[in-house]
Amino acid sequence: MKQDPEHQYQKATVIGGGVIGASWTALFLARGLDVTVCDPAPGIEQQVRAQLGATAPTLEKLGLPDVASSSMPLRFDSEITTAVADSDMVQENGPERLEIKQQLWRAAESGAPARAIFASSSSSIPASAMASSMKDPGRLIVGHPFNPPHLVPLVEVVPSSTTHPEVVDRAVAFYRAMGKRPQVLGKEIPGFVANRLQAALFREAVYLVRQGIVTEQQLDDVVTSSIGMRWAVAGPFQSFHLGGGPGGLADFVRHLGPALEALWKTLGSATFDDATVATLTAQAANFGASVEELEARRDNAEIRLLRTLDEVPAEA
Amino acid sequence: MKQDPEHQYQKATVIGGGVIGASWTALFLARGLDVTVCDPAPGIEQQVRAQLGATAPTLEKLGLPDVASSSMPLRFDSEITTAVADSDMVQENGPERLEIKQQLWRAAESGAPARAIFASSSSSIPASAMASSMKDPGRLIVGHPFNPPHLVPLVEVVPSSTTHPEVVDRAVAFYRAMGKRPQVLGKEIPGFVANRLQAALFREAVYLVRQGIVTEQQLDDVVTSSIGMRWAVAGPFQSFHLGGGPGGLADFVRHLGPALEALWKTLGSATFDDATVATLTAQAANFGASVEELEARRDNAEIRLLRTLDEVPAEA
Repeated sequence: MKQDPEHQYQKATVIGGGVIGASWTALFLARGLDVTVCDPAPGIEQQVRAQLGATAPTLEKLGLPDVASSSMPLRFDSEITTAVADSDMVQENGPERLEIKQQLWRAAESGAPARAIFASSSSSIPASAMASSMKDPGRLIVGHPFNPPHLVPLVEVVPSSTTHPEVVDRAVAFYRAMGKRPQVLGKEIPGFVANRLQAALFREAVYLVRQGIVTEQQLDDVVTSSIGMRWAVAGPFQSFHLGGGPGGLADFVRHLGPALEALWKTLGSATFDDATVATLTAQAANFGASVEELEARRDNAEIRLLRTLDEVPAEA
Repeated sequence: MKQDPEHQYQKATVIGGGVIGASWTALFLARGLDVTVCDPAPGIEQQVRAQLGATAPTLEKLGLPDVASSSMPLRFDSEITTAVADSDMVQENGPERLEIKQQLWRAAESGAPARAIFASSSSSIPASAMASSMKDPGRLIVGHPFNPPHLVPLVEVVPSSTTHPEVVDRAVAFYRAMGKRPQVLGKEIPGFVANRLQAALFREAVYLVRQGIVTEQQLDDVVTSSIGMRWAVAGPFQSFHLGGGPGGLADFVRHLGPALEALWKTLGSATFDDATVATLTAQAANFGASVEELEARRDNAEIRLLRTLDEVPAEA
């Protein structure tokens, strides 16, 4: 299970047992780690075990063990300082409030061994802010998953300007050992990379629906039948590199750059005003199945994609 | 081969035998049509046949016949008025210059039967402009493929405000019979839908690389390992609909709309100035394989994806 030959990971602590925390828990158990979930909420064990039960079939389709089994090395401990004892990785998924994160990390620092990697799943608070009152702020990074972490490969690893380089290296090695595809960002930026790209496309998507160019369902079909299937196998830069012919991206920019710049000038804006929300909500009723059914279909399709992509040569 | 039970298509005329025209030619032949390619360029037959030879293995992997076979009903005719005789579909891929398109369509109108569908592959000139000097401007639509048309399912069908509704219906039926997934846009807009969405995401991608947040290769990997694989199976609206939990898109906007609006305000801009082009070109050298090799890998992966997605239930 532990894929990194140079490191043997034994135990992870998951702080915060909500949807993201429980998904990390499932992944870490599936990859052979002991997991302690630390969350003071009443009923947290039942809630996490329920989500493990729902997640188990997905992981089994990927060839991983049954994370809902009662023999899994899963513990619950509401005290951070004891929950992090002997941990190799502390993955934090607490509320997105700065002062809470700062408290959590101070407590973790007081109880965890020196080898423990400290990573926050935060999508909006940079490590520099969370770590400001730690004894060693250089220990903390952001390890931001794309939801759900047990299924989607990306983890954005975002150091602050004071994070120790070896902490970055160790976090990357850990996530790789968990079967993830970590990417280290050069510096902190709001929304990191995936959410910024997603936000840029979605703004134009909302604009096009509001303008009556297409419906939500049509726009989704446009995406799945063109850029979505393309970007599942080759990212935007490689796609335009190939679009340039033998001369690659340089020729693409030479020939199509001016048209692209002109198109950028025409792109729309969007806000979630009442009329926009009413349009979005009304059209979402047309997806033709319940959220649960659509989610099951999506997860099933993504599992097939992951298996298919594993069969083809990795990109350079 | 002709999948539409109500229509039997016999012959297509492809005006312009460049990369897009030859790809349409391959698709139409593979789907059982007689095809006449109309292009006055010297050596066009050799050029088109060379591309058919390169395309044939891809189509065969999709279970379609060998379009490079000498027994294929493929003809070449440099005169538009005779090339369009008896055609069910005229798919035009001429130079992206308005006056040339206008001339082509006047000539096509004088030679084609009344049943012929007139569709332009233009990515930038609306039907309203191209058709302005036709006797019946209501006959013309844009049928814009996503490159390469023989492989990617999307066709954007873009009527002008004067296009006859039955022309739209017949174009949609034709493209469906060719195995495509046509989407009819509500009105004309620069770049249509897929290219606008792509442009919106790419602008942010260029910004992030210019800011040194990630390299091109990293950004591509972020996309393929998160939003790309997601959007191959569920478009952006359905993805956020599922991200909202049981309450769907309405709950998503309620809870995450303000954060998304805040992120929109921080998104970057980009231009292809000298420094940007230098950065993009330098990093494109790091893709680790030739354009031809990367293209073969991408096509191979896309074929596997298309097969995989055909196996899962169609979206609602």
